[in-house]
Amino acid sequence: MQSVVNAAEKAKDHGIDLAKLPQNVNMTAGTITQNVLAMNANCKDERMKLIFQSLITHLHDFVRETALTTDEWMTAINFLTETGKMCTDIRQEFILLSDSLGVSTLVDSLNNAKPQGATESSVLGPFFTEDAHDSTINSSAFFCLDLPLSPVQPGDSIASEGKGDYLFVEGRVTDIQGKPVPNAIIDTWETDGHGLYDTQYDIREGPDCRGRLRTAEDGSFSYRAVVPVSYPIPSDGPVGRMVTALGRHVFRPAHLHVQIQAPGYEKLTTALYFEGDPYLTSDAVFGVKSSLIVKPEIINDVALTKLRGFKEPKPHAYVKRDFVLATPEQGAEARRVLADIVSN
Amino acid sequence: MQSVVNAAEKAKDHGIDLAKLPQNVNMTAGTITQNVLAMNANCKDERMKLIFQSLITHLHDFVRETALTTDEWMTAINFLTETGKMCTDIRQEFILLSDSLGVSTLVDSLNNAKPQGATESSVLGPFFTEDAHDSTINSSAFFCLDLPLSPVQPGDSIASEGKGDYLFVEGRVTDIQGKPVPNAIIDTWETDGHGLYDTQYDIREGPDCRGRLRTAEDGSFSYRAVVPVSYPIPSDGPVGRMVTALGRHVFRPAHLHVQIQAPGYEKLTTALYFEGDPYLTSDAVFGVKSSLIVKPEIINDVALTKLRGFKEPKPHAYVKRDFVLATPEQGAEARRVLADIVSN
Repeated sequence: MQSVVNAAEKAKDHGIDLAKLPQNVNMTAGTITQNVLAMNANCKDERMKLIFQSLITHLHDFVRETALTTDEWMTAINFLTETGKMCTDIRQEFILLSDSLGVSTLVDSLNNAKPQGATESSVLGPFFTEDAHDSTINSSAFFCLDLPLSPVQPGDSIASEGKGDYLFVEGRVTDIQGKPVPNAIIDTWETDGHGLYDTQYDIREGPDCRGRLRTAEDGSFSYRAVVPVSYPIPSDGPVGRMVTALGRHVFRPAHLHVQIQAPGYEKLTTALYFEGDPYLTSDAVFGVKSSLIVKPEIINDVALTKLRGFKEPKPHAYVKRDFVLATPEQGAEARRVLADIVSN
Repeated sequence: MQSVVNAAEKAKDHGIDLAKLPQNVNMTAGTITQNVLAMNANCKDERMKLIFQSLITHLHDFVRETALTTDEWMTAINFLTETGKMCTDIRQEFILLSDSLGVSTLVDSLNNAKPQGATESSVLGPFFTEDAHDSTINSSAFFCLDLPLSPVQPGDSIASEGKGDYLFVEGRVTDIQGKPVPNAIIDTWETDGHGLYDTQYDIREGPDCRGRLRTAEDGSFSYRAVVPVSYPIPSDGPVGRMVTALGRHVFRPAHLHVQIQAPGYEKLTTALYFEGDPYLTSDAVFGVKSSLIVKPEIINDVALTKLRGFKEPKPHAYVKRDFVLATPEQGAEARRVLADIVSN
């Protein structure tokens, strides 16, 4: 009788020490959770063990709380499977799911908490590109040893002509005490007036509506861009169907991505959101923080428009916004305080 | 300025009533959960709304409790993506994930709770087939109008010769009061002596180690089979790697699947587990319930072996086990009681 007599031997052959295994025998709705946790007790990675303990407890509580039916469970299995199948090199449906359920923003908030006075973070999103830090319409022959690509000069444009309504952005990068941060690298990217990033076009001749700048000695920066517009998240997949079934829309409010790096400071990944956008208070992916909302001023001054380098003599939007960087120590302290608050 | 002025118009074009949307503006680790729930408040499907409320609350609590790092979150995204990619028509890696985390057993326990005295359920597993209800070695020309496939006759075998150690199974199907249930349909399936189901072989000429029986007037049934053996769950994918990283083995204890249907009773999906199996108390998918463990008797009586129809005069294992069916009303009451207990 192979199974009964030889199985213990076979277990040993597989390197399994049966003495170390739990003695679970009765799986019921009441005992299953502690039994699964007992099974994971031999996990050598303490962090992994902790994560699975919390995950399994919450997952089981969710099933018990909702008295999940077999059909609903099967719907979830099929949904997750379809979500996996939808993922490609250029589309990450599981990140979209995480975004739509507010998980990405929560993870961002916990991992990138900033101290009082520093600029808050916002989700990175899927449209940042490493390849597109120069500006195609940068007229000057700027050269910088430690920057592989030529940066956008102060006042230059990150967007080519005709990509949307004119926007002029300027401000300063400082530390929490207001001390300027010179030579900080600013990456900034946005949709064009059609609500599309350059990478979403079938033909992409080069980077557009994105660029890399450096702050001056006084921490200042300025550049021309276009007014970003709201746009739908990819909604032809399972996540889009889920969002719609939840009675929600699929739009993100218009925003201008900004990422700032400088030696001695934490990298800041954030975005500016535009006052008046109808989706500002119902962002499909929960990226908006009130401290990141800016009110663009409409400039009708033709001379100023010309001075700022815009080609056509039409009105432009103007945003003045400073960014405040935290040091790694300040950031770590802020996250420690936050972790204490949210875990209690 | 398109984004600021025309976006409300655009929202209306998309059929979105902005007045009904929440006014979320500050996404922090402390506010994000209530903001996401507010966004889902317009969901017209009350059950879906409830499920997502519980899911999102638990998911966020999990992230906060573990202070999940961005790298860990990305590991989870990649794991889920790979799990989706691993699914095919014949392999369901997400069900395996659900099984390995005890979720399948929990869902089964809640949905198939039985009243005191009735046989408990166990997980169906992925190896049941609709096509294989007859027995290839059924010698009699049995004909039954309401059964499309010829059933296994009492005492016949569901396994072809040479598939493993001999096993004889018999018992009765009754209701909770002990009244026999005649003409009940019993589907039963199992691994062969190599720990493989017939469907796991590249070449499958027909059903083997599986069959469909009917109970007699007195509720009795009997059949020949082979002693099932323990076997590993598919462990070459992300779930197998997860289980191993958790310090667990990938084995299921040997078991004999049984599914019973009879008019007037709830369908019973269960399995018999064999005392002495080393994996009985650490089933990789948490299927074992103590009430479903049977102790096979080893029969050395050559005459009895011959009488029971085994070909070779060698010892056989013998399992005598009755199954008790619940009525739909009895089952519903049991589930109502259980739901009260687990939700409190």
